[in-house]
Amino acid sequence: MREYVEIGIGREARRTWHLDDLTLVPSRRTRSSKDVDTTWSIDAYSFDTPVVSHPTDALASPEFAKEMGVQGGLAVINAEGLWGRHRDLDGAIGRVLAASGPREATGVLQELHAAPLDYELLAERIRDVRDSGATVAVRVSPQNAREIAPEVIAAGTELLFIQGTIISAEHVAKGGDPINLKEFIGSLEIPVIAGAVSDYSTAMHLMRTGAAGVIVGGGTNTSAAALGIETPLATAIADAAAARREYLDETGGRYVHIIADGELRTSGDMAKAIACGADAVMLGTPLAAAEESAAPGHFWQSSAAHPRFPRGVIEQVTDQRATLETILHGPSADPHGLQNLVGGLTRSMAKCGYTDLKSFQKVGISASF
Amino acid sequence: MREYVEIGIGREARRTWHLDDLTLVPSRRTRSSKDVDTTWSIDAYSFDTPVVSHPTDALASPEFAKEMGVQGGLAVINAEGLWGRHRDLDGAIGRVLAASGPREATGVLQELHAAPLDYELLAERIRDVRDSGATVAVRVSPQNAREIAPEVIAAGTELLFIQGTIISAEHVAKGGDPINLKEFIGSLEIPVIAGAVSDYSTAMHLMRTGAAGVIVGGGTNTSAAALGIETPLATAIADAAAARREYLDETGGRYVHIIADGELRTSGDMAKAIACGADAVMLGTPLAAAEESAAPGHFWQSSAAHPRFPRGVIEQVTDQRATLETILHGPSADPHGLQNLVGGLTRSMAKCGYTDLKSFQKVGISASF
Amino acid sequence: MREYVEIGIGREARRTWHLDDLTLVPSRRTRSSKDVDTTWSIDAYSFDTPVVSHPTDALASPEFAKEMGVQGGLAVINAEGLWGRHRDLDGAIGRVLAASGPREATGVLQELHAAPLDYELLAERIRDVRDSGATVAVRVSPQNAREIAPEVIAAGTELLFIQGTIISAEHVAKGGDPINLKEFIGSLEIPVIAGAVSDYSTAMHLMRTGAAGVIVGGGTNTSAAALGIETPLATAIADAAAARREYLDETGGRYVHIIADGELRTSGDMAKAIACGADAVMLGTPLAAAEESAAPGHFWQSSAAHPRFPRGVIEQVTDQRATLETILHGPSADPHGLQNLVGGLTRSMAKCGYTDLKSFQKVGISASF
Amino acid sequence: MREYVEIGIGREARRTWHLDDLTLVPSRRTRSSKDVDTTWSIDAYSFDTPVVSHPTDALASPEFAKEMGVQGGLAVINAEGLWGRHRDLDGAIGRVLAASGPREATGVLQELHAAPLDYELLAERIRDVRDSGATVAVRVSPQNAREIAPEVIAAGTELLFIQGTIISAEHVAKGGDPINLKEFIGSLEIPVIAGAVSDYSTAMHLMRTGAAGVIVGGGTNTSAAALGIETPLATAIADAAAARREYLDETGGRYVHIIADGELRTSGDMAKAIACGADAVMLGTPLAAAEESAAPGHFWQSSAAHPRFPRGVIEQVTDQRATLETILHGPSADPHGLQNLVGGLTRSMAKCGYTDLKSFQKVGISASF
Repeated sequence: MREYVEIGIGREARRTWHLDDLTLVPSRRTRSSKDVDTTWSIDAYSFDTPVVSHPTDALASPEFAKEMGVQGGLAVINAEGLWGRHRDLDGAIGRVLAASGPREATGVLQELHAAPLDYELLAERIRDVRDSGATVAVRVSPQNAREIAPEVIAAGTELLFIQGTIISAEHVAKGGDPINLKEFIGSLEIPVIAGAVSDYSTAMHLMRTGAAGVIVGGGTNTSAAALGIETPLATAIADAAAARREYLDETGGRYVHIIADGELRTSGDMAKAIACGADAVMLGTPLAAAEESAAPGHFWQSSAAHPRFPRGVIEQVTDQRATLETILHGPSADPHGLQNLVGGLTRSMAKCGYTDLKSFQKVGISASF
Repeated sequence: MREYVEIGIGREARRTWHLDDLTLVPSRRTRSSKDVDTTWSIDAYSFDTPVVSHPTDALASPEFAKEMGVQGGLAVINAEGLWGRHRDLDGAIGRVLAASGPREATGVLQELHAAPLDYELLAERIRDVRDSGATVAVRVSPQNAREIAPEVIAAGTELLFIQGTIISAEHVAKGGDPINLKEFIGSLEIPVIAGAVSDYSTAMHLMRTGAAGVIVGGGTNTSAAALGIETPLATAIADAAAARREYLDETGGRYVHIIADGELRTSGDMAKAIACGADAVMLGTPLAAAEESAAPGHFWQSSAAHPRFPRGVIEQVTDQRATLETILHGPSADPHGLQNLVGGLTRSMAKCGYTDLKSFQKVGISASF
Repeated sequence: MREYVEIGIGREARRTWHLDDLTLVPSRRTRSSKDVDTTWSIDAYSFDTPVVSHPTDALASPEFAKEMGVQGGLAVINAEGLWGRHRDLDGAIGRVLAASGPREATGVLQELHAAPLDYELLAERIRDVRDSGATVAVRVSPQNAREIAPEVIAAGTELLFIQGTIISAEHVAKGGDPINLKEFIGSLEIPVIAGAVSDYSTAMHLMRTGAAGVIVGGGTNTSAAALGIETPLATAIADAAAARREYLDETGGRYVHIIADGELRTSGDMAKAIACGADAVMLGTPLAAAEESAAPGHFWQSSAAHPRFPRGVIEQVTDQRATLETILHGPSADPHGLQNLVGGLTRSMAKCGYTDLKSFQKVGISASF
Repeated sequence: MREYVEIGIGREARRTWHLDDLTLVPSRRTRSSKDVDTTWSIDAYSFDTPVVSHPTDALASPEFAKEMGVQGGLAVINAEGLWGRHRDLDGAIGRVLAASGPREATGVLQELHAAPLDYELLAERIRDVRDSGATVAVRVSPQNAREIAPEVIAAGTELLFIQGTIISAEHVAKGGDPINLKEFIGSLEIPVIAGAVSDYSTAMHLMRTGAAGVIVGGGTNTSAAALGIETPLATAIADAAAARREYLDETGGRYVHIIADGELRTSGDMAKAIACGADAVMLGTPLAAAEESAAPGHFWQSSAAHPRFPRGVIEQVTDQRATLETILHGPSADPHGLQNLVGGLTRSMAKCGYTDLKSFQKVGISASF
């Protein structure tokens, strides 16, 4: 039963929880880290680690996308970002980083996104990643999915992310012609992961569109200030997991994956997201320390480039640098869960007595505040 | 049912909530921002945006008051402030800003308010704003309403704000002759908005005086320290909304507007205030960045000028500057909900699936702490 | 019914509240400040304000004690402090303030307290205060009450404070001969105020000793760190008030006063303490800004001088200076409730609709956290 | 009954508590500190104080280990640390402290631990401590217990600590041969204290292995970030105490001691840990100020040396220096509960009305947040 509080006479609010409010409780026989398996499989694709990178040009340089594949994870390329707009990617990123302040950086990013999208340039770059052997995942926005998706699929995209800050299965507009996701996803030949959602019913609606995975969370670091909207991630993941169970029953066995996005900064956060019910995690800032990332040390979300209502700050998030391999698999002298992320997750599972991701979703959780 | 906690044996406290404790939960089909309508109508007056400025000389220069009208909002002029006391308004404000510290600034403001009120000067300035086409709203204190209201109404005031830090429908004084609001409001020909209140019963009493609107909240940033009194705004708005429903039923249809004041710093806060039940918001510090404001970057409440017991600090609240148009309607490169306030509210409504302010009062609320 | 939480299997903790967790809710007709009466009467003594100073040499210089009387409050002199140990009081205080750090200051204070207690010197100083017309209140510790009380009473003490950091009606010691408060208080001819207590049963026991008043709270700023003991003041006052009601019933009408000590920094805190059930407040740091205090700007509690286990830090608590008159009665340009303390309390009562202290104990309380 | 919160639909979390959330409530007759007895006896060993030092090379120099015995406490030597790896202990510690930053220090520590373990050197040093008359306690990890324990027991170890960051009675590994604690402990001739655990069932399992004591808590300062695992110490102690009661009943009288580790910084924390149900406390950072410690002012946990996944930061935790005698028994001018730790505990017990540790486990607890 959901918990509600009465904030005023006759007006209730749902009591919700952030990952930071929770910790894990080891209460079973410990296991050996060597026996832990972190494999994540979705549709026909299998990954050694349940780690997906956030679709931002701050992370996904071509080199980064390829290396994610080598390291057992999945990079997501933003089809509506700079890859298809500027042949000199490094130069474009360089201009953003050279801005004199956060607002100026937003201005530069807005300007760079005003350049036209060159499908041929984008396709060329997608093919280059695919040629490396990495699984190719590309993100389009719900608004532009119908126009852009065919282009990126033709170029070799294997997993399509239809991802906005907030999505619904059926967007309502007077006299407009918005995308009907169910129809659209049904028309595609490749699996789709869609989001972000933050509640049970939207998660359920999205599962019914035929999506292979649903992204939960993903609010920017300024959503609460700008929109009053914030996703308490622990609650959102658990609610989506409830929708997954319900939908599994409804369909007699279709399992839709939950990918948690936002609030994830450390290997401990990854463990907690999976404990709440996620199958995989989408990482942003934790990967910004990677030497292979497009803007090492910096991060922004794609919504930071919105021409009229930018959300999310372009900022330096770390002064650490390490290879993606070290960040994901160590070894490391860092004790804060910022490096050897998969090692930390593995160790957490072993200490709590679990050897695979699915069963780890049942680990004991503790709430202190 | 209201929630109570027992703070000690036999002594209960009401559990209350601040806007900061809450966020909004999108759980419906998303809508297009273009389909959102933020019109706010009270009595015969209609505004494109539900934004009212706090009645302080820190904001309301004549230029500011006129521009608020142009931008679809409503400026409130403080009849008991500097407009009617100093012909050189800029010079007076300049003296406040030149003070060497916050206490000294309070001293200067106290001194400036000791000058006599020149009704003719005040009327002249009110007429000037009215001539610009803007709707003219003027604030008087409950104590001085009987004396000053006729003067400002004669000068062209269209909406009268009777506003103190805390108000009651009938102030009790031994051997004194305080204002009976019901009688007084009934005697006026223009609509009255009164406040501030922070609980159900006072809101109900004020509605019964015949006020067209009730201001909820409005505590200063020092009320808790000085008086131990603080309005948890989310609870106060929801309680007043309950009184509105009750009074609507009692009268068979008289709808009294709720204007939320205090704790409002961003477009996200505006969305949350309306979500709790407000019809419009009274903004203070968010408008201080306006180039048109009387003391750009600075803010204080009118109660900061009280001769013996000043409340509220005179302080610089921002080093940003933008036109009122940009602050209300953008476009902007600011992602923190400090500019394009109405755009942020609009977007929040669209993301949550609502197209008008009244229905947005039912959006799902989440409480994390 | 008291609220409990289970902190672990089979182990409960009482849910308790600090004044900072609470605010007051105006929900009645407002009153005029002029109609508010803050008179506090205990036994045969009546004071214009319910303000008692903490018994520390940091505050109580002879000048301070006399001026408290002029301003309608009550100063408490620490019989076991420096008054009876050093003829050159200013010089002694000067040595404390000249110490190079907090630990060194504690060391100096410990050394100054090692000097013998000269009863004649103490009596001389007590007589001097009494001659000024101020009511004379003197504090002794429970341990030394039997020895010192007769001396200070002979010198003219009118109200005796038997005050330790924690007190019980009957201290238990193997083979020792501790004070039996009931017997002792019964043997005295002047009213006794005893404390500090922090729970219902100790408060009740103390009331049954015949004390005219009970001090509630009073923990030092280091009690929690040093002893794990801390008094959540709101709960402690409310519990003591419940004991007061019970004892009133038990005795058919004996009313024991509750004096709240600790956590009180502003006029708002004073209002909240009375709202929880206190009859008067004992102020420490708020009075340290007084020019008449012994160590202007500085504060420490008497327990800071303990030879082996000092509690409480000797520290500068403010760089403000004002006359005691201004601190208690204003006028003031300070909006933070640090000056015009009685004015703030008065205004709070008026805004909440109460005109005397006793009825103000019923004002609505709100809890936000 | 345990308290649960629903963090999302169908997913619950246990509500848990930290020591910092709690304070003690004096509600009985006060006692004299002189009547308080802090003796702690486990198996055939008796200590004047319930204080055990954390098994880290940051604390345990040979001099420190001996002095702990003199002062009535128990030092624990880490058999897998530097004692058996480097004849020049001071030089090794010096290299750690000379590192240019925390990560570099971790690197040095990792390198120092890569040196082989010289059992003869370790035995020599253990014999030296034993010769001083101090009780000799040595810690081994669960992984290496079978190999190292016989060596350290042969050298004169009287109490064996089998201590990892998290332990279970039976570690499960595919095809491996992990330790069965019940079997192993049964084979030893000296009492074993094992841990750390953080929940009821693991505590119960460990008690059933025949351990004389169970360590509760002990997470590092980076566990939450790295693993998502954190022990809310108050709840963990209370749960283990419930297991102790159950096991006492099950065995008809075998009493297993609970030693609290982690979150303990002051004498107040020690009092709170015992109030929650601990029999003794394991102190880390509070002892780092000891002049006799190996790395005065600095602290790290043994897990900080892990070759691939270090947890816990090597850091300066204080710039205070005092003898171990002063830290444990005073006298002191420190009011913050950082010195005279046993004096603070004693005083807390006396103020709350208890004269022995076991009965103090029933003192009233208050929860504020």
